[in-house]
Formats: sequence, C-alpha cells, structure tokens
Amino acid sequence: MYTGSLRALIDELGRLPGIGPKSAQRIAFYILKIPSEDARRLADSIVAVKDRTTLCEQCFNVAESGNLCDVCADDRRDAHVVCVVEDPRDIVAVERTQQFRGRYHVLHGALNPLEGIGPDQLRVRELLGRIDAEEITETILCTNPNLEGEATAMYLARLLTPLGIAVTRIASGLPVGGDLEYADELTLGRAIEGRRAVVP
Amino acid sequence: MYTGSLRALIDELGRLPGIGPKSAQRIAFYILKIPSEDARRLADSIVAVKDRTTLCEQCFNVAESGNLCDVCADDRRDAHVVCVVEDPRDIVAVERTQQFRGRYHVLHGALNPLEGIGPDQLRVRELLGRIDAEEITETILCTNPNLEGEATAMYLARLLTPLGIAVTRIASGLPVGGDLEYADELTLGRAIEGRRAVVP
Repeated sequence: MYTGSLRALIDELGRLPGIGPKSAQRIAFYILKIPSEDARRLADSIVAVKDRTTLCEQCFNVAESGNLCDVCADDRRDAHVVCVVEDPRDIVAVERTQQFRGRYHVLHGALNPLEGIGPDQLRVRELLGRIDAEEITETILCTNPNLEGEATAMYLARLLTPLGIAVTRIASGLPVGGDLEYADELTLGRAIEGRRAVVP
Repeated sequence: MYTGSLRALIDELGRLPGIGPKSAQRIAFYILKIPSEDARRLADSIVAVKDRTTLCEQCFNVAESGNLCDVCADDRRDAHVVCVVEDPRDIVAVERTQQFRGRYHVLHGALNPLEGIGPDQLRVRELLGRIDAEEITETILCTNPNLEGEATAMYLARLLTPLGIAVTRIASGLPVGGDLEYADELTLGRAIEGRRAVVP
C-alpha cells in the first residue's frame, strides 16, 4: 500500500526486534511528523552507536571505542571480585541491585551445544587470562538460571575451582514477595536445597 | 546505567511511540549487533523519509516530494467521488477493502475544541476548493466513528450539502463475524437505526 521512501522506512523498522507491521507503520508516521532535526538526531544516534561503541578490552562489556568500560575504568571498584554474566544487559541488572562493587566479565552467550556454542565461542579463555593477571580471588557465576546458564556455570566452576579461587553461584529460590502456592516445583526445590540458617 | 552513544541511542529510541525503556534497550543492543551497513540503511531511511516525503498538493495524502500521491496520480480512479479521511493511514485501511475506486481527501485530524482543533486547523478549506475545481459529485465522510469523527462528519455535511453534491457517511454497526451478545449498546443501537431492507 505504501510506496517510495515511506515503504522503505516501514520495512527497515519492521526488521527491528519486537516491532510488528502495525508498530512499524505507527513509528514511520511519527517520524514523518516530527521536526527534521529530531529525525536526524535519531538517525545519527544509530550510526554513532556503530561507529563509537566497542567491547571493553578487559571485561567485554560495551564501551566507547578505545576505552575501558565504565566499570573497569572506575578504580573504586574491587578488582579482585569478578561477576561473570552472559550479556552486557545483565550488568545493568546487577548494577541496579547496588549489591555488587566488583568488576564483571561478559561471556557473550552461554554454552549451547545444539546451536554450536561451545567454550571457544564464549569469552572463556579471556576470563582464565584475567584470574592471574588481575589477582582475582572470587568469581560469582551470574549466568541465567536456565538450562544453558546452569551448564555454563557448572563448566566454569570445574575450570576455575582448581585455580584456588572462590567460585560462587547466585542463589535460586522464590522471588521476594512471591507465593509458595504459585511457585513451580523446580524453583521451590531449589529454595529448599539452598536453605540457610536463621539467626535469631 | 548506560553511558555515551549507547545511552543516547536508547534515549532516542525511547521517544518513539509504543517503545518503552525495555524495548528501547533491546533494539539498541540489536543495532549494536547487526552489520554496520544494515544500521546505516536504517538511519538513511529515516533521513530519506523526511527529505523526500511531502503531502500530495491535491488530497494531502503522503507523497514523494513534488509529486501527486499514488492515488491522485492514477487517472483510472474516479475523480468525481472523494472519500474524506482524518489521516493518511486511513487511506491504507480503505484501500485494503478494494471497495473504493475514487479519490481521497485527508483532513489531518478531526474537530476537537478542547484541544483547540477547529476547521481552520484541518484541510477543510482545501476540500471546499476541490468540489468545484474537480467537479466532485459525492463525498463519503469516512472519519472515525467516535466523538470527534462524528462531529467532524456532521460539520462537513452541513457545509457540503448546500453545494448540491451527495454527502454520505460510512455505516456504523456490528462488525462482520461479531456477536449480538457482546455488542455495546451504542453500536447495536446504530446497527438498528441503520437497518436495511432485506431483498429476498
């Protein structure tokens, strides 16, 4: 129904994740209406993120080109404790808790033999390299609590424990504010398995 | 949590309609991952739509700059019947029915005194100008069947009827495949009011 540059824009927008044909159409018409400077700024920010963003050479978090990421560049952070995550977005989730003052290591995925993702496709070698170089004393395995994440955590634990450092895994259990009745049996099982002494 | 060009992109994306913070984040990381050419093509299509798109000088539909829109440029269409819509997107909806072979007129809104939108803010004067110039014999008032759309249709009917042309309004009623039981009383009332003789 649409032709020319409007059709082209709707097609491009429709390729973005989570954007269906209706949303693409709505966004395209929104872009038609806003001032040219605003549209130009959006377009520029897309190009800029590709030109200027790279991976931190230390932890493989997202960083502005040629720099360490914000966490690695911050020397108030504890360099000896490293939280291992699958994805840069997971760093944001951990940071939001304000419970962690160490550094990160981004694997960029999780083990998934069916999709051909083994240790060589992840940043595992680089993690091993950091243990000695940065005198790391603890790694917190913060991969997702699903099949791939658990397998990855288990694999890393086997690799890291012989190096004589503490290797911990985030707890699985009932979400805060959750309800026993509605907990799935796997989660409740984990919560019981991971029970802790109550200090009165 | 994010900084630099990634932060800027997430902010820009978050301004688009229907894109919340989570979607903006997801799209930004998607853009980080795709090849630079693909990101560049998306950015270019945003700029192109602003540079190349304008409003059709005849009906105010979207058109490539300096041209009539696809409908007005197509001389197989009946120039004497004009379907009046609020928005260019409504044209796509009508076209999809394949029930209409005339031309369009886009008002770019509906009367809404509370938001300061009167006839002067809409393309009403231009519609009046077309009636004589293009020898229009019928206008189909195809504004939305809501408060603003009905008010606009009523206003236009009062304006156009004295010019001696046929002025019609799209029917309100139960949607095809609908269910009497679930119809709201306004719609069902309209359906009864607009009842038609059954020709056996």
